[in-house]
Amino acid sequence: MRFCQSFMSELFRHIGADLDVPAGDIGVGGREVGFLFGQYKRLANQWNGVLTGKGLNFGGSLVRPEATGFGAVYFAQEMLSERGESLEGKTIAVSGFGNVAWGACIKGSQLGAKVVTISGPDGYVYDPDGIGTQEKWDYLTQMLVIEREKCETYVRKFPKAEFFAGRKPWERKVDIAMPCAIQNELSGEDAKLLVANGASSVIEVSNMGCAAEAWKLFIEKGVAFAPGKAANAGGVATSGLEMSQNSMRLAWSAEEVDRRLHEIMRNIHRSCFETAKRYGFPGNYVVGANIAGFKKVADAMVDQGLA
Amino acid sequence: MRFCQSFMSELFRHIGADLDVPAGDIGVGGREVGFLFGQYKRLANQWNGVLTGKGLNFGGSLVRPEATGFGAVYFAQEMLSERGESLEGKTIAVSGFGNVAWGACIKGSQLGAKVVTISGPDGYVYDPDGIGTQEKWDYLTQMLVIEREKCETYVRKFPKAEFFAGRKPWERKVDIAMPCAIQNELSGEDAKLLVANGASSVIEVSNMGCAAEAWKLFIEKGVAFAPGKAANAGGVATSGLEMSQNSMRLAWSAEEVDRRLHEIMRNIHRSCFETAKRYGFPGNYVVGANIAGFKKVADAMVDQGLA
Amino acid sequence: MRFCQSFMSELFRHIGADLDVPAGDIGVGGREVGFLFGQYKRLANQWNGVLTGKGLNFGGSLVRPEATGFGAVYFAQEMLSERGESLEGKTIAVSGFGNVAWGACIKGSQLGAKVVTISGPDGYVYDPDGIGTQEKWDYLTQMLVIEREKCETYVRKFPKAEFFAGRKPWERKVDIAMPCAIQNELSGEDAKLLVANGASSVIEVSNMGCAAEAWKLFIEKGVAFAPGKAANAGGVATSGLEMSQNSMRLAWSAEEVDRRLHEIMRNIHRSCFETAKRYGFPGNYVVGANIAGFKKVADAMVDQGLA
Amino acid sequence: MRFCQSFMSELFRHIGADLDVPAGDIGVGGREVGFLFGQYKRLANQWNGVLTGKGLNFGGSLVRPEATGFGAVYFAQEMLSERGESLEGKTIAVSGFGNVAWGACIKGSQLGAKVVTISGPDGYVYDPDGIGTQEKWDYLTQMLVIEREKCETYVRKFPKAEFFAGRKPWERKVDIAMPCAIQNELSGEDAKLLVANGASSVIEVSNMGCAAEAWKLFIEKGVAFAPGKAANAGGVATSGLEMSQNSMRLAWSAEEVDRRLHEIMRNIHRSCFETAKRYGFPGNYVVGANIAGFKKVADAMVDQGLA
Amino acid sequence: MRFCQSFMSELFRHIGADLDVPAGDIGVGGREVGFLFGQYKRLANQWNGVLTGKGLNFGGSLVRPEATGFGAVYFAQEMLSERGESLEGKTIAVSGFGNVAWGACIKGSQLGAKVVTISGPDGYVYDPDGIGTQEKWDYLTQMLVIEREKCETYVRKFPKAEFFAGRKPWERKVDIAMPCAIQNELSGEDAKLLVANGASSVIEVSNMGCAAEAWKLFIEKGVAFAPGKAANAGGVATSGLEMSQNSMRLAWSAEEVDRRLHEIMRNIHRSCFETAKRYGFPGNYVVGANIAGFKKVADAMVDQGLA
Amino acid sequence: MRFCQSFMSELFRHIGADLDVPAGDIGVGGREVGFLFGQYKRLANQWNGVLTGKGLNFGGSLVRPEATGFGAVYFAQEMLSERGESLEGKTIAVSGFGNVAWGACIKGSQLGAKVVTISGPDGYVYDPDGIGTQEKWDYLTQMLVIEREKCETYVRKFPKAEFFAGRKPWERKVDIAMPCAIQNELSGEDAKLLVANGASSVIEVSNMGCAAEAWKLFIEKGVAFAPGKAANAGGVATSGLEMSQNSMRLAWSAEEVDRRLHEIMRNIHRSCFETAKRYGFPGNYVVGANIAGFKKVADAMVDQGLA
Repeated sequence: MRFCQSFMSELFRHIGADLDVPAGDIGVGGREVGFLFGQYKRLANQWNGVLTGKGLNFGGSLVRPEATGFGAVYFAQEMLSERGESLEGKTIAVSGFGNVAWGACIKGSQLGAKVVTISGPDGYVYDPDGIGTQEKWDYLTQMLVIEREKCETYVRKFPKAEFFAGRKPWERKVDIAMPCAIQNELSGEDAKLLVANGASSVIEVSNMGCAAEAWKLFIEKGVAFAPGKAANAGGVATSGLEMSQNSMRLAWSAEEVDRRLHEIMRNIHRSCFETAKRYGFPGNYVVGANIAGFKKVADAMVDQGLA
Repeated sequence: MRFCQSFMSELFRHIGADLDVPAGDIGVGGREVGFLFGQYKRLANQWNGVLTGKGLNFGGSLVRPEATGFGAVYFAQEMLSERGESLEGKTIAVSGFGNVAWGACIKGSQLGAKVVTISGPDGYVYDPDGIGTQEKWDYLTQMLVIEREKCETYVRKFPKAEFFAGRKPWERKVDIAMPCAIQNELSGEDAKLLVANGASSVIEVSNMGCAAEAWKLFIEKGVAFAPGKAANAGGVATSGLEMSQNSMRLAWSAEEVDRRLHEIMRNIHRSCFETAKRYGFPGNYVVGANIAGFKKVADAMVDQGLA
Repeated sequence: MRFCQSFMSELFRHIGADLDVPAGDIGVGGREVGFLFGQYKRLANQWNGVLTGKGLNFGGSLVRPEATGFGAVYFAQEMLSERGESLEGKTIAVSGFGNVAWGACIKGSQLGAKVVTISGPDGYVYDPDGIGTQEKWDYLTQMLVIEREKCETYVRKFPKAEFFAGRKPWERKVDIAMPCAIQNELSGEDAKLLVANGASSVIEVSNMGCAAEAWKLFIEKGVAFAPGKAANAGGVATSGLEMSQNSMRLAWSAEEVDRRLHEIMRNIHRSCFETAKRYGFPGNYVVGANIAGFKKVADAMVDQGLA
Repeated sequence: MRFCQSFMSELFRHIGADLDVPAGDIGVGGREVGFLFGQYKRLANQWNGVLTGKGLNFGGSLVRPEATGFGAVYFAQEMLSERGESLEGKTIAVSGFGNVAWGACIKGSQLGAKVVTISGPDGYVYDPDGIGTQEKWDYLTQMLVIEREKCETYVRKFPKAEFFAGRKPWERKVDIAMPCAIQNELSGEDAKLLVANGASSVIEVSNMGCAAEAWKLFIEKGVAFAPGKAANAGGVATSGLEMSQNSMRLAWSAEEVDRRLHEIMRNIHRSCFETAKRYGFPGNYVVGANIAGFKKVADAMVDQGLA
Repeated sequence: MRFCQSFMSELFRHIGADLDVPAGDIGVGGREVGFLFGQYKRLANQWNGVLTGKGLNFGGSLVRPEATGFGAVYFAQEMLSERGESLEGKTIAVSGFGNVAWGACIKGSQLGAKVVTISGPDGYVYDPDGIGTQEKWDYLTQMLVIEREKCETYVRKFPKAEFFAGRKPWERKVDIAMPCAIQNELSGEDAKLLVANGASSVIEVSNMGCAAEAWKLFIEKGVAFAPGKAANAGGVATSGLEMSQNSMRLAWSAEEVDRRLHEIMRNIHRSCFETAKRYGFPGNYVVGANIAGFKKVADAMVDQGLA
Repeated sequence: MRFCQSFMSELFRHIGADLDVPAGDIGVGGREVGFLFGQYKRLANQWNGVLTGKGLNFGGSLVRPEATGFGAVYFAQEMLSERGESLEGKTIAVSGFGNVAWGACIKGSQLGAKVVTISGPDGYVYDPDGIGTQEKWDYLTQMLVIEREKCETYVRKFPKAEFFAGRKPWERKVDIAMPCAIQNELSGEDAKLLVANGASSVIEVSNMGCAAEAWKLFIEKGVAFAPGKAANAGGVATSGLEMSQNSMRLAWSAEEVDRRLHEIMRNIHRSCFETAKRYGFPGNYVVGANIAGFKKVADAMVDQGLA
């Protein structure tokens, strides 16, 4: 708390709701954002949306924790829809066991898919019944408080599931792979396994979760690949929705936030997809995301004049 | 006007749309808020939602005058609904003859109840036909300009109504009592009469309108009692909606404001009701409101760190 | 660019989202607003709605270019509806060939009318098939880049249309006339022609497009006349909607902006129409707009106190 | 007072001790500066040297009222010294009877000269004994309160003096003329009289007190002529010294202010004199003041870069 | 330190070098001022004279600790001089043993007087050789660190001095009494003793050090009495000089501060003395200080206009 | 100019007269400071001492260019005086030919020493008559404009002087050496030569002008050595005096600035000398400067509290 307050004692003059709006990240969760916000409010004498990831009691948004996972599944849905398919009946391998993985499991399940794996530093769990129920997550969350960083506990309660110590879920035969844990968690070797097992789509949800050899292989082999910079935008987008709610001095319902998140992800997918097509790389989301992102920033810079 | 301007000449540096937002109260009505707002604008060089209760021509909100009364009726509706009842066909005793009473009469009537009393410093009026029509209020408002603080004039125009000089409406047999005038207007004796006459609900709309003996008796005797801090929140809530409209630079229609007010009152009721239940006092709105309010503030303080 | 930046180096301290919000005008288009906005952002260290007419990439609103034309057609629709008529099947003469004329053609056509003329400094085009398709406008816009200020090129591509060099569209027999070019473009003589040809409505869209003799004649002869200060408010209104979107940190869809623009124009029409009636000049929109506008400003000034 | 306060309610955001520092002028004396300062302090919440000409109780400077007259005499002294002469024993004709004339009489007398005239709208007084004693001024000041704008009263008390109704002091034979009243008070005709009577120096103290024909004649005839823009700089200079005292939060003694004023006037004289010589117009203070002033401003502008 | 920082986290927005400048007082010494200043600097991002009593390393002034005592002796000197006397050869009884007493001893001694007493909560010391040497004070200061609040230790080192436990120095026969400890330390009884012993002057240095009966007796008996509000102004005056040094970004030498302090005290004495005479109470410093102080504030308020 | 303006467009919000005051340095001379100041003034709307090294026309200080050289000679004078000697009759070897060398030559000569060398990239000049006259410097300055970086031209005009191409002045037999050019210009070998030739003092004026072996040798051999961090403080000190003049809104005469500079250098010398003695290294200015500097900063930090 002291560190957050001292840090904000200098930072407060450099940020603002219309200037720069920091959000949490690794090591800066809701607790730290609360302390930072309290100190900002005290010093700047302003109560506004200067930080995102706030607690629900003082300006935070519903659906924020699960937003990245939800958004990634919406992106997957759009990709499938582009090929005339849907999530209905698909199997998904998810890695990780935190907020992102949670969001992917819940939303994937809502949209008719079955998430069959999650993973931790200790290995991965395979549950042929699917992991997308609130009951299963509540148990898991509770267990993780007691035995930190272990997902093996899952199989104690749900005996149909199996635990594979020290291994990664990419060895399972699934339709879709969604790495949701950390960078470089899906290697070139993993990619070969997925391709061999007939996976049709890979959604990179963790930041740079797939090694370069991996995503190049996917594109080469015709596996639809969504790069993280597009697919995991749901978290940042919901920070933006939190800012909107703060600006309007209103709190949206979970349904409203979810609906807007869905719309944003649809637009991001559209932008990547069509940019890729226009520039001669149809279906290549990596190229589409890079060009669309660069163009938007570059155009705005030129339009606003040189310094 | 001079006083408002001189007062604001110092106050303007201590308030702000993101800092502290004063509203009118006893003796500070729309006229004074207008003068204060004009001076704020002149000195702070800012046109925003720094005050609430503004005129409709410069940022005020529709439904603001009647908001407290509307909100209290919505709260009553939720209370009844919790017991499987509705306002349809119920009789209501209202005290007072100002904006708050007006709002209660109109909204109560819209939702199917019949408001049979209003009151002034001179006594109360009993109208067996109900007082919830715009025509009746327009007449009353007009009369009050001529003969200040007298509601007896009502019976001149509407002869079916009776006037009872120097007495209070709580002696009537009604289903619901809504004190809407001033603090301590409903004494322990009044409470005994209401209980004896079989009233099933009391909605405290004026701030601390019921003496301590009164509301303790209601709870003891199983009469549903809504404390003012919860039931009269509609006024403050609509000040919040005025701030939202200012922040969005939009003016909502009366229907939109009313709809949002309704939703807010529903949430307040839910929060009181469920908190009371969770802490072992089912149906006790006093306990529910106190705990829910305290918890919200205390949690936010702790989350934002110690000074 | 240097001029915009140097100008803003002084202006930035006198404007603000809650203070004064400049917009483009003749000679200050999207390009200049972009340069001004870039410099404001750099100096004020604020990213907000301090200017309107911004590019879509940095806070601009959809439907802004065509807003004035759309709004004028909505106003016309209300005028007709007041007389029990509609735009369905009506013929409209439009002057000009810029954003305003474009908006009028597109929206008029959407609502079932046929716009049969546009004009330029070189004369006017008469197209009996109507000019309200995107295809025709795209061609025209392209031509205007090559041969500036000439609308004669239109007839090269669409041979059913005729070009009348050096003349004005008001000589055609139409139901509705909409001057959309420059001030004083519709003289007393033009007005006589329109009256003689049986036009039932004139919507002044350009600022003071009709000479005083012209609009006085319309009122005298019972031709419904909408003054520019009311009918062309759609542009300013959409600047207001751009400010709202900036304040909410959201971008509305084109449908949403259009819907709100429609509602605003309906309210403006209502206010003019009813004010005229209340003050004893039924159907006289000139009187209605003047009184309603003056009253709104005067009331707000009085309410906010004398300086 | 209300006017000063309302005026400052807008002005306060455009001035500042480091930005722009207004001073009194015709119609804005110590009383008005006090009201303006009080309102500035109230609104800006700053107590500093934002205005000059303040009362001695809240930041004003000693010697300010008499500064212009003192400065002009110092300038005269330098001019004489340049020709190997001094004020000792010289006779001076002064016009006017306000602060400026007062300062010239007192300081001229201190330095050994004899001021033999003062004037008012009613004519001029000639006192062969000299007017440079505090006793004579005290009497005069007192009389002017009773019979406004009349200097004739002077001769009632001091019978050796004579009053010349409706005439100007320039008809007297004196060594030095110092117009201290209003613009254009010394005409071409007056100039001829002074030249004919052998005046050796003319110090223009009022702003543009000498008509163009007058000062041109002086230069032509070899009469040393000091233009007002240089000779009356003592008032503005002492406003600068007031700012210095405010910045240092100290009040200088009258001697200290007088000493610094003397030094400033010496430098101004030197700058005019040497600039005139360097540019080929030795002894021409008009040319010297113009070039020196222009050069100082132009150099600073170029050094600080183009906007 | 934490308390000072947290306090300043709110206070910093209400103070400023041109707004309000707090100084230390009882319980807030150099250490606390340092912590407050550090936090102000951190938050306000300003390095200026916002507090006085700072350490010498960051903007404090020399002579500040001893200023109150020095100033009181200067005041005494002026009082004597008014009666044609001087401090040369006078004996002085001082109470207290802190900074104020120290200053009085040192300066009294420098000006030729002999301070024969100091006192503590335990009693008083009488030293017929005088206490005005640095050596004696250094010893005392050192002892007070070891045995807090005891001045008895003095006699151990300087055996010619005597200690009188539980008594006050006012029983000694001296020319001048200077109470320098706490309020009400010199009672009516003490005053009678001093009068009986022929004291000619009493300088109240502690705030309200003399009971009302005491100072009334002095005035009645013709003993020259200087009230604290005038005589102890040296401390506040030196805070003002610290502000001047901060504003000038210079540090004056001890001699310079002492010289200015002397001049200020001379002016304060003159103002009290002459005001008393002008209003008909010659020699009554109590009346003089009250009227002169009130008049200065009242005049400035009136001159700056009503709020 | 454009670069300076663009740079200041961001910098202006991070600096201020009470916050951070940049000064020129290598590549940022009076011209650049002027452009930066002009842009600061334009954007911050403040005219104050936010930068030092300004032009004389807009807030710069006299004696600033020569201040470093002057200060170094004052330091030398104090060092000699400490040993009972003076500059009278001493010979000095100076390197460099810029402002610093110029100041050292002029001031050294004023105080009775004879500066016999200056140097450039091309070699050094030895003038047995001394180089401390304004006439010689004016010639040199003029030559340097024509033939940049060549000091050989000196001997053309003053034939008694000799030029030694490619060599350094430390080979001359002198009493005092003052490196005034660049870092590391005086090597260990040069130091041996100076020691061998009997130099008694070395004043490092350039920043780190002496290699570590050099100054260690001087201390070892008993040659008085002044480190640059103390001896060249005259430049920074005069920036401080420029800030003082800006704060007081006054310009000091050259004599006044020189006098204050002298006093500051005397205090710096005293502080180094006495600190060295107190900590057991008498005569070691390197140790004295390091400890005194560190202690001052560390004490102020501790006094102001931990962040």
